[in-house]
Amino acid sequence: MVKTPLIDKSDKRRVVILGGGFGGVELAKALHHSDVQVVLIDRQNFHTFQPLLYQVATAGVEPQSIVYPFRKIFDDHPNFYFRMAEALSVDTTRQIVETSIGYVNYDFLVVATGASTNFYGNAEIQQKAIALKNIDDALSLRNTILSNFEKALQIKDDAQLNSLMDFVIVGGGPTGVEIAGALSELRSHVFPKDYPELNFVKMDIHLVQSGDHLLKGMSLEAARRSKEILERAGVKLWLNCRVKSYDGFTVTLDTGETLCTRTLIWAAGVAGTLIDGFRPEAVKQNRLKVDAFNRVEGYDNVFAIGDIALMSTTENPEGFAMMAQPAIQQGGWLGKNLARLLNNEQLVPFKYHDHGSMATIGRNKAVADLVIFGNTYKTQGFKAWFIWMFVHLISLIGFRNKLIVVINWMWSYFTYDTGIRLIIGRRKENTPVEATTTKAVV
Amino acid sequence: MVKTPLIDKSDKRRVVILGGGFGGVELAKALHHSDVQVVLIDRQNFHTFQPLLYQVATAGVEPQSIVYPFRKIFDDHPNFYFRMAEALSVDTTRQIVETSIGYVNYDFLVVATGASTNFYGNAEIQQKAIALKNIDDALSLRNTILSNFEKALQIKDDAQLNSLMDFVIVGGGPTGVEIAGALSELRSHVFPKDYPELNFVKMDIHLVQSGDHLLKGMSLEAARRSKEILERAGVKLWLNCRVKSYDGFTVTLDTGETLCTRTLIWAAGVAGTLIDGFRPEAVKQNRLKVDAFNRVEGYDNVFAIGDIALMSTTENPEGFAMMAQPAIQQGGWLGKNLARLLNNEQLVPFKYHDHGSMATIGRNKAVADLVIFGNTYKTQGFKAWFIWMFVHLISLIGFRNKLIVVINWMWSYFTYDTGIRLIIGRRKENTPVEATTTKAVV
Repeated sequence: MVKTPLIDKSDKRRVVILGGGFGGVELAKALHHSDVQVVLIDRQNFHTFQPLLYQVATAGVEPQSIVYPFRKIFDDHPNFYFRMAEALSVDTTRQIVETSIGYVNYDFLVVATGASTNFYGNAEIQQKAIALKNIDDALSLRNTILSNFEKALQIKDDAQLNSLMDFVIVGGGPTGVEIAGALSELRSHVFPKDYPELNFVKMDIHLVQSGDHLLKGMSLEAARRSKEILERAGVKLWLNCRVKSYDGFTVTLDTGETLCTRTLIWAAGVAGTLIDGFRPEAVKQNRLKVDAFNRVEGYDNVFAIGDIALMSTTENPEGFAMMAQPAIQQGGWLGKNLARLLNNEQLVPFKYHDHGSMATIGRNKAVADLVIFGNTYKTQGFKAWFIWMFVHLISLIGFRNKLIVVINWMWSYFTYDTGIRLIIGRRKENTPVEATTTKAVV
Repeated sequence: MVKTPLIDKSDKRRVVILGGGFGGVELAKALHHSDVQVVLIDRQNFHTFQPLLYQVATAGVEPQSIVYPFRKIFDDHPNFYFRMAEALSVDTTRQIVETSIGYVNYDFLVVATGASTNFYGNAEIQQKAIALKNIDDALSLRNTILSNFEKALQIKDDAQLNSLMDFVIVGGGPTGVEIAGALSELRSHVFPKDYPELNFVKMDIHLVQSGDHLLKGMSLEAARRSKEILERAGVKLWLNCRVKSYDGFTVTLDTGETLCTRTLIWAAGVAGTLIDGFRPEAVKQNRLKVDAFNRVEGYDNVFAIGDIALMSTTENPEGFAMMAQPAIQQGGWLGKNLARLLNNEQLVPFKYHDHGSMATIGRNKAVADLVIFGNTYKTQGFKAWFIWMFVHLISLIGFRNKLIVVINWMWSYFTYDTGIRLIIGRRKENTPVEATTTKAVV
């Protein structure tokens, strides 16, 4: 394919934003009234609200409700241009980004490519496990879970049956904890009604965490309480453990123990999604080193925000946590700084406002460390759960999405049911299941 | 894979239903309190409300809202068993159905496999066109339409641009008319806002119909009015025309004229989805000949309902139209007849109640021929549109689905917008697009 410019030169200066996650979208919004041409490049034509991916994966909400088309977000921004493409590399000398569908020149470049699942170099796990970083992952996990039970109906052999009905989640951060909680709710209230022929006492949910407590980065109260809630819900916790290998059937832990599952859910870490073309000195641990203005080290007109940006501060020498809040705040802040830059004004160093963090574990159950006017309030249980719902709901883009998610949540709450247990599209199939002998009809 | 019985023998007699469309679901519901084991076999784990597939394809509603998991429909039916499998063939002597995951014995077999898209043997068209018979088709069409516009942004060459922005729909039945109407609404209200860089005067919507009027089977008033509405909406009608060939780029009509499109939407006909194993005498035009009790000709315990069943009556010597109403009514009726059969009572011949038919063409615009107490009322315009919405809404399974579809419809009605313009999953890519030269930024 002949590589051509994505967009013709205009008389305005051009800001190219790579990635439409929380940071990229916030930045593009902040540039609404600036005298620049804004070009957003993303592989998808929609923004994904990642904190609710686990609910798509566990059939709680429709994928459609947690994503929003970029073109719709920005349809009243006359200076906004979108291209659906993958950013491949950057030539900072010629000020050009190479993409999968052509190249684009920039006056200012903002790298907001976010992070991808980190398999720590284990190719086998990367191939056989399911991650949860985008809508495709979430749908693949949903389809896989449901298909497993459909297949289990034909299986009598105990090891085969366990491999289909058991789930191993790796990573005790918010995603891992939230999936474990959601799966245990489904096991209590939904699956036994859907599959009366299966015995759900056999369904084990394992959560493997390398550290000695869950929700690293949150308070010890949150860690203790989430452990308590998960254990009471029958989730088997493996603390101080790492997964050594996984062949699609057997998970081997570094303690030597083995677990048997066809569904290994990998939520053990993320790494910055770096593109080629940056000086090696600017890169550290797959992230771009930025100064207090989000400017990438050694460049004048290249910036990075969110997960991909490594902004070392006194409180966070290793950079901010790779989560939504720093990305959103850096996006908005950089928008203002770019406006200052265009007006030849002094840039203002980024200041992070920590609002705290939370994780939901099930019906009426969540943990939250909230920072309000500088004070930390720790709360667990119903109150935390209610705050979690409220915060996530108002953060969703679009009134229609909010409404449909509220309906789904209220529906599940009152009926102990979800409506979205559908197998549509791709699913993960490791070694095919051999239907040995049939199960007796209960 | 070793073939094993899907379900162990029970002491109850077993009714195996192949296919969970309108007919199969209605029958399984009707057998709720019968003293039989009901086994439903379907390739998907959900029922699809096919009349709204075109709205999924045109980004009007979420796929999740028009499908419903079988296990959820029947979770209070203790005699109901579901298996997700493809029925391959039947051995009527041994009373066994062979499926993709094993075999199943039956005492009574009901074929409700419905119909598939009929490409009339044209392999090229089958490979390059997009049909609209299931959720995968609908999503593929949605993704393709949106991807086309994303690609069009990079194209300057006129023929290439037209091929991406023009759409050719084959078939002037309800599906063809409804897609044409929905696309023209998107062209007027939605796409120009999403893609300000494209000139939508260039977007042509062609509807090719072999007969001399649209909506064959409906009244001439309905045909005339739908033609008028579509023409006023700028849809180009090709009546008395057939598509001769399509290479993924050029559509050649039997009149010799050619149209240029990368998206040929095939809604020109359906054919029964027959499985192997029936006596040739029982088969006519890919359908199973049935008597007035839906019993397949020459068999005692094999029945067929819906699209696959050819029930010749005085009014309909060629069988009922392959639409929802006959399927639903035959499903319910056969349920009662099977109950009679089990009680050694006399079977009652099927009686069809024609409620009429309708098609919607756009905002406030539809045509309807309603049959009420034996009288036909023909109505077009707003009233027909309102009735269309009401009837389709109450027919959807599940309160949650109804609610979410209502919200989507009201949302679109008041905002002239839809929220679901997402490219998620598979799309049809015929010959790759060569990005020749870029378009100027408007």
